[in-house]
Amino acid sequence: MFSVHVLNGPNLNLLGAREPEIYGQATLKDIEASLKERCAREGVPLTFKQSNFEGDLVSWVQEAGACGAWVILNAGALTHTSIALHDAIKGAKAKVVEVHLSNPHAREAFRHISFISPVARGVVAGFGALSYALALEAIISAETRKS
Amino acid sequence: MFSVHVLNGPNLNLLGAREPEIYGQATLKDIEASLKERCAREGVPLTFKQSNFEGDLVSWVQEAGACGAWVILNAGALTHTSIALHDAIKGAKAKVVEVHLSNPHAREAFRHISFISPVARGVVAGFGALSYALALEAIISAETRKS
Amino acid sequence: MFSVHVLNGPNLNLLGAREPEIYGQATLKDIEASLKERCAREGVPLTFKQSNFEGDLVSWVQEAGACGAWVILNAGALTHTSIALHDAIKGAKAKVVEVHLSNPHAREAFRHISFISPVARGVVAGFGALSYALALEAIISAETRKS
Amino acid sequence: MFSVHVLNGPNLNLLGAREPEIYGQATLKDIEASLKERCAREGVPLTFKQSNFEGDLVSWVQEAGACGAWVILNAGALTHTSIALHDAIKGAKAKVVEVHLSNPHAREAFRHISFISPVARGVVAGFGALSYALALEAIISAETRKS
Amino acid sequence: MFSVHVLNGPNLNLLGAREPEIYGQATLKDIEASLKERCAREGVPLTFKQSNFEGDLVSWVQEAGACGAWVILNAGALTHTSIALHDAIKGAKAKVVEVHLSNPHAREAFRHISFISPVARGVVAGFGALSYALALEAIISAETRKS
Amino acid sequence: MFSVHVLNGPNLNLLGAREPEIYGQATLKDIEASLKERCAREGVPLTFKQSNFEGDLVSWVQEAGACGAWVILNAGALTHTSIALHDAIKGAKAKVVEVHLSNPHAREAFRHISFISPVARGVVAGFGALSYALALEAIISAETRKS
Amino acid sequence: MFSVHVLNGPNLNLLGAREPEIYGQATLKDIEASLKERCAREGVPLTFKQSNFEGDLVSWVQEAGACGAWVILNAGALTHTSIALHDAIKGAKAKVVEVHLSNPHAREAFRHISFISPVARGVVAGFGALSYALALEAIISAETRKS
Amino acid sequence: MFSVHVLNGPNLNLLGAREPEIYGQATLKDIEASLKERCAREGVPLTFKQSNFEGDLVSWVQEAGACGAWVILNAGALTHTSIALHDAIKGAKAKVVEVHLSNPHAREAFRHISFISPVARGVVAGFGALSYALALEAIISAETRKS
Amino acid sequence: MFSVHVLNGPNLNLLGAREPEIYGQATLKDIEASLKERCAREGVPLTFKQSNFEGDLVSWVQEAGACGAWVILNAGALTHTSIALHDAIKGAKAKVVEVHLSNPHAREAFRHISFISPVARGVVAGFGALSYALALEAIISAETRKS
Amino acid sequence: MFSVHVLNGPNLNLLGAREPEIYGQATLKDIEASLKERCAREGVPLTFKQSNFEGDLVSWVQEAGACGAWVILNAGALTHTSIALHDAIKGAKAKVVEVHLSNPHAREAFRHISFISPVARGVVAGFGALSYALALEAIISAETRKS
Amino acid sequence: MFSVHVLNGPNLNLLGAREPEIYGQATLKDIEASLKERCAREGVPLTFKQSNFEGDLVSWVQEAGACGAWVILNAGALTHTSIALHDAIKGAKAKVVEVHLSNPHAREAFRHISFISPVARGVVAGFGALSYALALEAIISAETRKS
Amino acid sequence: MFSVHVLNGPNLNLLGAREPEIYGQATLKDIEASLKERCAREGVPLTFKQSNFEGDLVSWVQEAGACGAWVILNAGALTHTSIALHDAIKGAKAKVVEVHLSNPHAREAFRHISFISPVARGVVAGFGALSYALALEAIISAETRKS
Repeated sequence: MFSVHVLNGPNLNLLGAREPEIYGQATLKDIEASLKERCAREGVPLTFKQSNFEGDLVSWVQEAGACGAWVILNAGALTHTSIALHDAIKGAKAKVVEVHLSNPHAREAFRHISFISPVARGVVAGFGALSYALALEAIISAETRKS
Repeated sequence: MFSVHVLNGPNLNLLGAREPEIYGQATLKDIEASLKERCAREGVPLTFKQSNFEGDLVSWVQEAGACGAWVILNAGALTHTSIALHDAIKGAKAKVVEVHLSNPHAREAFRHISFISPVARGVVAGFGALSYALALEAIISAETRKS
Repeated sequence: MFSVHVLNGPNLNLLGAREPEIYGQATLKDIEASLKERCAREGVPLTFKQSNFEGDLVSWVQEAGACGAWVILNAGALTHTSIALHDAIKGAKAKVVEVHLSNPHAREAFRHISFISPVARGVVAGFGALSYALALEAIISAETRKS
Repeated sequence: MFSVHVLNGPNLNLLGAREPEIYGQATLKDIEASLKERCAREGVPLTFKQSNFEGDLVSWVQEAGACGAWVILNAGALTHTSIALHDAIKGAKAKVVEVHLSNPHAREAFRHISFISPVARGVVAGFGALSYALALEAIISAETRKS
Repeated sequence: MFSVHVLNGPNLNLLGAREPEIYGQATLKDIEASLKERCAREGVPLTFKQSNFEGDLVSWVQEAGACGAWVILNAGALTHTSIALHDAIKGAKAKVVEVHLSNPHAREAFRHISFISPVARGVVAGFGALSYALALEAIISAETRKS
Repeated sequence: MFSVHVLNGPNLNLLGAREPEIYGQATLKDIEASLKERCAREGVPLTFKQSNFEGDLVSWVQEAGACGAWVILNAGALTHTSIALHDAIKGAKAKVVEVHLSNPHAREAFRHISFISPVARGVVAGFGALSYALALEAIISAETRKS
Repeated sequence: MFSVHVLNGPNLNLLGAREPEIYGQATLKDIEASLKERCAREGVPLTFKQSNFEGDLVSWVQEAGACGAWVILNAGALTHTSIALHDAIKGAKAKVVEVHLSNPHAREAFRHISFISPVARGVVAGFGALSYALALEAIISAETRKS
Repeated sequence: MFSVHVLNGPNLNLLGAREPEIYGQATLKDIEASLKERCAREGVPLTFKQSNFEGDLVSWVQEAGACGAWVILNAGALTHTSIALHDAIKGAKAKVVEVHLSNPHAREAFRHISFISPVARGVVAGFGALSYALALEAIISAETRKS
Repeated sequence: MFSVHVLNGPNLNLLGAREPEIYGQATLKDIEASLKERCAREGVPLTFKQSNFEGDLVSWVQEAGACGAWVILNAGALTHTSIALHDAIKGAKAKVVEVHLSNPHAREAFRHISFISPVARGVVAGFGALSYALALEAIISAETRKS
Repeated sequence: MFSVHVLNGPNLNLLGAREPEIYGQATLKDIEASLKERCAREGVPLTFKQSNFEGDLVSWVQEAGACGAWVILNAGALTHTSIALHDAIKGAKAKVVEVHLSNPHAREAFRHISFISPVARGVVAGFGALSYALALEAIISAETRKS
Repeated sequence: MFSVHVLNGPNLNLLGAREPEIYGQATLKDIEASLKERCAREGVPLTFKQSNFEGDLVSWVQEAGACGAWVILNAGALTHTSIALHDAIKGAKAKVVEVHLSNPHAREAFRHISFISPVARGVVAGFGALSYALALEAIISAETRKS
Repeated sequence: MFSVHVLNGPNLNLLGAREPEIYGQATLKDIEASLKERCAREGVPLTFKQSNFEGDLVSWVQEAGACGAWVILNAGALTHTSIALHDAIKGAKAKVVEVHLSNPHAREAFRHISFISPVARGVVAGFGALSYALALEAIISAETRKS
């Protein structure tokens, strides 16, 4: 069996309140509930966390890698600046699907660089809360094919 | 009701044969069959085309925009060079989901720029043939919420 | 005597429908009609074409060069990417007046480079459909001075 | 009714003498005469000035903006360096048509940037003295359509 | 005792009329009156000037440096282009506080470079007319501490 | 009524000891005391914090935004690297005045970029400890005008 | 046995007429004849084509790759812009020798980048029509060594 | 006497497990043991820490600076992004020897910039666990020469 | 016979007072006197001017060009920013020797670009007041050889 | 009659031993022998040299230019750094064919610049030892056409 | 057994005299003596050379590679410009430890690039003469572990 | 007393023959003769050398520095690439006047960078053989003032 860790970076705790015309009205709680329901149907254990600290995300990615869990990672602003997260994914051999609520390439130039993408299995961006759900489908589908 | 146009750019006709360690072993025919099956279950008409000519893709995007169809667009190498496709999507107000088999940001620097992303609704990249399926789910989900 | 070829690039067939707040409400048909009327008064033969294919524009520029015709060229998005059009103008010694409906320098950075300008006789930009008419006046004026 | 201010920047007083193979043989006096004649036919008041000082041009653009006059602006070398002129046009809401005798994009790289273009209504470049005349036609045409 | 010279660059004479949503509704006269009142309370002589000419500002900075006066300098667009002002401040050892009505770093990229900042004592930006008042307080405070 | 949160980033706890020729001899305690005194006179509640962790600053900015408090933010080195702080200010709609003890534009090139400036109301830099006091005056003044 | 496909890009149909001081006076027909003669002596089948369309060249490279033929590719201006041709060569595992009549590195900066070189076996440039002949000798020599 | 603080940044806790072909098989525990043994022989107190948080490293560098200890600093990925660490070293006047297990200049371009090097006494890179031992010898040698 | 115009740009009136460790202690008056003496010996008329206005320098270069005089030009800070001066020299065919008191290439990066050099006959830099004298010798020598 | 000088730069003496998977197994002796044989058949004198010193290559190119000999130049790493060789070729009017064993454009970015190409008659790259032979054919062919 | 070649580039013969505040007061003779003593204790043969010629260093690196010796390489200024040395190390498979007296990253920008680092086993920089000694320890340690 | 060493870099031995329209018709022998004559009149010993080897120039600059001689240095192409010469001048404290026959800033972009200028006393460029004579006058003048 496999498990899934959903890891959220800085400011994602603001979701719903923060610029809803860009990020949608679902809160992080809503997303967690919706993913939990889907995982329950598959019997897949789900962990769901958020932090404003890069250090927490680095540690969590290491833990996920150590226990072989899949990671759905929305690193928020750290996507564009954190080589430490890049190294954590690579060093811990974590299986990461990168997600974004909005489409970073349609925004400011400093959001066009991703240190996560080169070490991620795949990317889903621009669908709001649905981005998480699609990432989860991708993981379930990958695991189903294996078995 | 709504319809979906799946538009594929240069070299995607090579799929299956071309660098299978990067792009997977599914052929474009396989992808078409799998999407058709899913669409049939929903009663959604699906159009599926490929061309090595930028001009064809520009025209097809215009047509999709004109009839209000959703577009799943894998523009291949044109993703990184075609301002004409950018203008077609914007000018024809086409609803585009950008897909890629591999993750362009994990490859050469000249694949890190996308002229499609700034005018796309969302992006799915790096899951091989599954990228198309996830894009289709995103469209179905968006339409379901509307109705 | 002299003749004029008006050559239009990708997406200009959308004119009138496409972002009218930028490009105005005149269609390509309207522009053609207005230029034809003016040419008829001078007894100047006018050819008017549009294509979404770079290859067509390259060939048409070559033909215009071969028969000594003036070219009013709105290459659309190809303005910013097509070295092939640059080479065609130079190689065929075509007499080109570059036109744009909007002013590319007031838009995105990727529209600030023109491969047409260095090999064009002159540029008219930003006056909507009137840009074409002014280009035609420039040609008529140049030919009048010669005779 | 409307009026037109023709404002010329540094070194345009050399016209006719200065590099005639690039700029043509018409002097600034010739251009003024020809524009005056055309304006007289329409009953449009015309002001025609030249200065080597950026400060003069800034002040003149402000004055034109204040009285609602159209501006035909050939800022010469200041085109490529003067943010102050950019601000004057924007701040005074001046209606500016940018003109150039030669085509700056066919010359040195430092002439490829224009601080005027982003705040101009349109651009005419590369037709020598005729550039001014075409700019005037554009203004007359725009005013005619309004009435 | 000390005196203060308030020097304003190109287009600041438009204040109040020019883009009030960015620059506020106070005119330069209003700002002058308000600063004069504050200086009168302290017994500090105040000089207040504006010019659209870089040469005037260079000369005024030299004069202020020569007589040991403080300078509140809003160089407008020259902030971003004038090495001559940079040299004048350095060469005349003028004590300069740089002010801006708006925040240049929140605007176009060409406003992100300042040739004044490296030779200024301090910078106040983004508070509209209040920026001048705060600069004056900084000067009064610095002089008070000395005595 | 309104309140003010003064938030200090990495290394500002060294103030007084650290490079006094650049940053002055006042300690952070001195600055806090001086601001508290001023706020007490106005009856304005003041919160004053420092952290070496980006995550703390992100959280504190979110809190200030949530309770409608003004923020005086000296993000130290994070000014130049933290997109997360940029997002926090924007996402929490925090009213931020950016302050710096020294003038970053007079120092190394890597200090010339600010991710705070584009989302700040104003900037005060280069006056040492006085920068904080001036920022506070700006806030009091803004609130006074409103009432 | 092996075969050779000679593929020519945009504007090469102008050869002989186009800027003979750069490209020489031989026409494309002349080059074809000369290569055919050499191939006939070796009993090697030769295909010789030209197109102004990127899409044609992509398809032709795919065909050559599919049948194991060698490709002598003069992509003209597409050399510097076509990632699609790069992908076609790599995807179809085509054995390509890149040729140029003139030496691109001795010309404009935008001709210094080649998307063909990184996936070509070798490059011959600057010898006019002779470049093709040398490329053919390289192929014959490589095949001879194999057998 | 003097003491030594060995400070390790993000992901160095993975050492031994993480990409051993790059970083070697020694764990951080092994390195600590080996350095402790060497220090014991010299009677030098050694502190050895690791954190995934930039804030911890900033604080630890400040502490080392405050007590006059030498620092052996392997900042991991923060080497390339942390201006806060740069400021901490400079502000606390910490005596730092920068170490790396691998040679950053032989890896990705984003590892070629170091914010530590300009404020470090020396650099040792590329010798795996031995890099730490050499740094320690450098410190012992420097102190020996002083006494 | 020939004459010499010595033209000095912004801030050169500060000479002697301004940063004497860079520019030396001679004033502009001293330099004028010394050059006049040398010219008197040769019977060469000398004109010597200074202005803080770019417009003055442009006009003076035009005048020198018109009467065939040699120009010794120290454009000060305008050296690095004034395309208008570049155009004046070229347009008026002025014979210019560029001089600098200090060596711009040994100073800040923004002084490494010269718009004067590409249109100057020669450059003398770094010898303080002596730079002017050497430039004068170069002119006398060039004229002597002609006759 | 004509002669040929084959000039080899740094490290080409390692050929055969050095990275044979890139450079092939032929030694420089083998290449010399094979070229000598071909030249003997034509009665063309051949000189063949190698040096690790830029100064030697500069002198040899000068000598070849002085006696009108053709040069086959493999400058090795100096290709990318030596302006002195560029100047020697231009100054001595040497007729140079640039050769490379591998294709520099398919390798590191710092090998994409060539100071030789802009002054060479042609380039042959990527065919291993065969590159030299093709260059020789190009020279023989050019000379044959002349006679 | 193994041997060590210490190779020194341009200007290192000046050591002791040259900028002692940067490079220390030890001469190259002192360094040689100290390394010889250490090698004598281990019975390791040591060769020690210096040259101002890139060609000498290239040849010496080749020789060291050919006989399997370790190289301690201080290439001086050639570190930042010599692709030939890069190629020599790679081509001759030389085992190189790069050393610097000062820390190049704490100096001018043009010293931040190293062509040696990507092909070196390790780097030691910034410890003055001690850098050589540490490099020697690294080599002895590496050889000891092997045996 | 003082002496002067005139040091010439690569390709200057071609002078007179090499591109006379740029470099003039005087040979290096002519220049040497003319400088010798001037020095004889002053009783100043003159040394005059040329080499195509960077290593020679580095050594010669060191020697000049060691004996306190002035250096007139025309480093030719090495001006733009040789950090070793930069270091030699600085390390040996040589008093260098940089000369060029032509004006490098009026030529290709790669000649706009000088590693000599930042460590030279002055620069004379663009006067052909006269550049050397002016440099000599500058030295004599500087020495005269001292005595």
